[in-house]
Amino acid sequence: MSESTRIAEVRVTPILISDPPLLNVQGVHQPYTPRTIIEVVTDNGVSGIGETYGDTDYLKIAQAFGPKLVGQPLTARNDLFARVSAAAAEVDIAQIDNTVVAEGLRGARTEVKLVHSVVSGFEVALLDALGHETGLPVHALLGGKVRDRVEYSGYLFYRWAEHPVAGEPQDDWGAALDPAGVVEQARRFADRYGFKSFKLKGGAFAPEQEVAAIHALHEAFPDAPLRLDPNGAWSVQTSLEVAAALEGVAEYLEDPTAGTGQMAQVAAKTSLPLATNMCVTAIDEVPAAFTSDAVQVVLSDHHYWGGLRATQDLAAVCRTYGKQLSMHSNTHLGISLAAMTHVAATIPELYYACDTHRPWQTEDVITVPHTFTDGAVDVTDTPGLGVELDRESLAALHRRWLDSDVRDRDDAAAMRRVHPDWTAPAFPVW
Amino acid sequence: MSESTRIAEVRVTPILISDPPLLNVQGVHQPYTPRTIIEVVTDNGVSGIGETYGDTDYLKIAQAFGPKLVGQPLTARNDLFARVSAAAAEVDIAQIDNTVVAEGLRGARTEVKLVHSVVSGFEVALLDALGHETGLPVHALLGGKVRDRVEYSGYLFYRWAEHPVAGEPQDDWGAALDPAGVVEQARRFADRYGFKSFKLKGGAFAPEQEVAAIHALHEAFPDAPLRLDPNGAWSVQTSLEVAAALEGVAEYLEDPTAGTGQMAQVAAKTSLPLATNMCVTAIDEVPAAFTSDAVQVVLSDHHYWGGLRATQDLAAVCRTYGKQLSMHSNTHLGISLAAMTHVAATIPELYYACDTHRPWQTEDVITVPHTFTDGAVDVTDTPGLGVELDRESLAALHRRWLDSDVRDRDDAAAMRRVHPDWTAPAFPVW
Ligand SMILES: [Mg+2]
Ligand SMILES: [Mg+2]
Repeated sequence: MSESTRIAEVRVTPILISDPPLLNVQGVHQPYTPRTIIEVVTDNGVSGIGETYGDTDYLKIAQAFGPKLVGQPLTARNDLFARVSAAAAEVDIAQIDNTVVAEGLRGARTEVKLVHSVVSGFEVALLDALGHETGLPVHALLGGKVRDRVEYSGYLFYRWAEHPVAGEPQDDWGAALDPAGVVEQARRFADRYGFKSFKLKGGAFAPEQEVAAIHALHEAFPDAPLRLDPNGAWSVQTSLEVAAALEGVAEYLEDPTAGTGQMAQVAAKTSLPLATNMCVTAIDEVPAAFTSDAVQVVLSDHHYWGGLRATQDLAAVCRTYGKQLSMHSNTHLGISLAAMTHVAATIPELYYACDTHRPWQTEDVITVPHTFTDGAVDVTDTPGLGVELDRESLAALHRRWLDSDVRDRDDAAAMRRVHPDWTAPAFPVW
Repeated sequence: MSESTRIAEVRVTPILISDPPLLNVQGVHQPYTPRTIIEVVTDNGVSGIGETYGDTDYLKIAQAFGPKLVGQPLTARNDLFARVSAAAAEVDIAQIDNTVVAEGLRGARTEVKLVHSVVSGFEVALLDALGHETGLPVHALLGGKVRDRVEYSGYLFYRWAEHPVAGEPQDDWGAALDPAGVVEQARRFADRYGFKSFKLKGGAFAPEQEVAAIHALHEAFPDAPLRLDPNGAWSVQTSLEVAAALEGVAEYLEDPTAGTGQMAQVAAKTSLPLATNMCVTAIDEVPAAFTSDAVQVVLSDHHYWGGLRATQDLAAVCRTYGKQLSMHSNTHLGISLAAMTHVAATIPELYYACDTHRPWQTEDVITVPHTFTDGAVDVTDTPGLGVELDRESLAALHRRWLDSDVRDRDDAAAMRRVHPDWTAPAFPVW
């Protein structure tokens, strides 16, 4: 290949993937959640694939940008943010007012963050194609792996046994609604995948119940690092009470309270590190959080930050300011798991097991889904991401999208199907 | 190629290159200055070249590390710092005590900084070889260029017409020891290379004289951005007097005073931005300088920071903290100019013309030295750095090194050949 290799074709495909009824402070996962699958094809006929959020606004921007990528150099990634921003300016984005709302599952929602998430899908697709063009794995295109396996933590959820409507996707995990259920889920995760650390998604029950679940996990897995993440649902006072109850038991608390200011108040009074994927999810949120020492661990997410290179940039910022880095996850498929694994392999200072939802997904769009062994995923040395698109599966999941009117993830709406009066709660909930 | 491509051969060659008698606060450039040229050859027989400092300690570490690179993957760069550090631990480094001395031309001297400078030479050589293996220019391996040309500033020096000893290298630039001489030098730079901005290396004369030179430049080139860099020689009070005299005339002041604390005192009382390549030259120096707003422009130098990727990392840190980035230079040849140009081409937020000493050098180790037109260097799209090693020239400059006892740059020693009582001055000088 050469620098003159260009993108000849781009496909942006919205899909719906089934998702189990996992609980969080906002509600419950819907039976189906949208993702966007991106394919780029070079003028040499070489393909690359990427994956990102599929909700309406992300999809609109991705669909606006896709055609503009045709004719551009395969190797041009440093100006993706500028180019996707230009495309975003041409579409009508419904749900953005650029006000800062610290609640929700992702922190403040801004157009810049939307654009970054779309960039990430294209950046990964370009890297995958470049890998196939050059014969190099994505990690080598990012400066090379510093480890051969990437460790993930078992991501535990309070959950129902099944969705409330007959015919919706099912699995055999059963309900987990108390400490015993959480421990049972963890055992199954440990047995099946070998996870050596666990994170519990909290905010679904009162803090005392969730603290009891962490203590039960600690009893069952005394050597396992444990984390609890209520997505900002607690007050400063409640956060400090939970921190006191979990010192010596939890590895860190994740977003116990909403917003940098409250996080700083908690951090000042506990020896437990605080992690976040809510109050630091874009560069303009970094200085205040670091200066006030509100967070000690930044949970990177290449979808949030604008791709794999941006994740390495974030690692550089954390390195410079003495902050730790780990990795956040939302519902995702194997393309993103491959991307996460490649970039995680390149970052020297990655001392915590990364998060992933992937074990909860029963579907995928790659031909050979990853296997977790001993709680880790192998870093592949084959070209690109090391995964292959399953076109039949992609077509089926796109058909589901076409046949459905689900266009956005809305955990509160899903909860209302069972509790008609449910609304996303005012923070702090506890 | 593939991820299994390995390094089969490494050559580390010290050279001495001629240097004109350029003045600074420490003394004067020696007639010859050491550089290290690094060549790597892959097991496919493909070569890459890099360039870095050649003083004793740098050379020792490079010579210790070179053999350890043999057999390693061509694509492995993310762990270079760790691997070069391990090699450095095995050699006896004479001039390091890890104390922080804010004076000198490079700020505090630490072993970490030495290691980074050695890493940079190898990292560039690996990128060049990877470019030749893949057919891609170095900028494409760094995420792609965002500009086709990189602008440099004309780097003006007070200087003697010639070195004091007969037979030492000569050029036809003549002396520049007053405002008229500086303006004449700038005119020649502008005529020959088209530079549109100028930097004057100060600290050689009293501040009033250097301020007068900047005013004379402003009169001769009213539209040209101008900078003055005394390498930290002034007190806070003197810095503020110079700043007051140059507001509306200078683009920024570069290291007017030594150390982050004094820089912060100056920055607090002037509207002129302060730039530095002395008080922020490694990541552990960043937080204090940014928190105290001691600097507004960080002058990156890929030799200092550990390579091209590390320069992009620095750009990410600056982007996050709202700081500007430009580029510093010491005496260097065309390999480093190529490296500087490729990385500068990849950084979106590069709003200042970069520094380069290269126009002062009469020798090079590449077959076709770069040309500056309209003050800029073209970004090449040919594989690797886009330059070719001139083996005859390399051999001749290495022969000079073998035949000489010059092993380190020592501007004060060079000055003593004319002023026997000269010592590097105590700071602040003025
Ligand atoms: Mg979280
Ligand atoms: Mg300087």
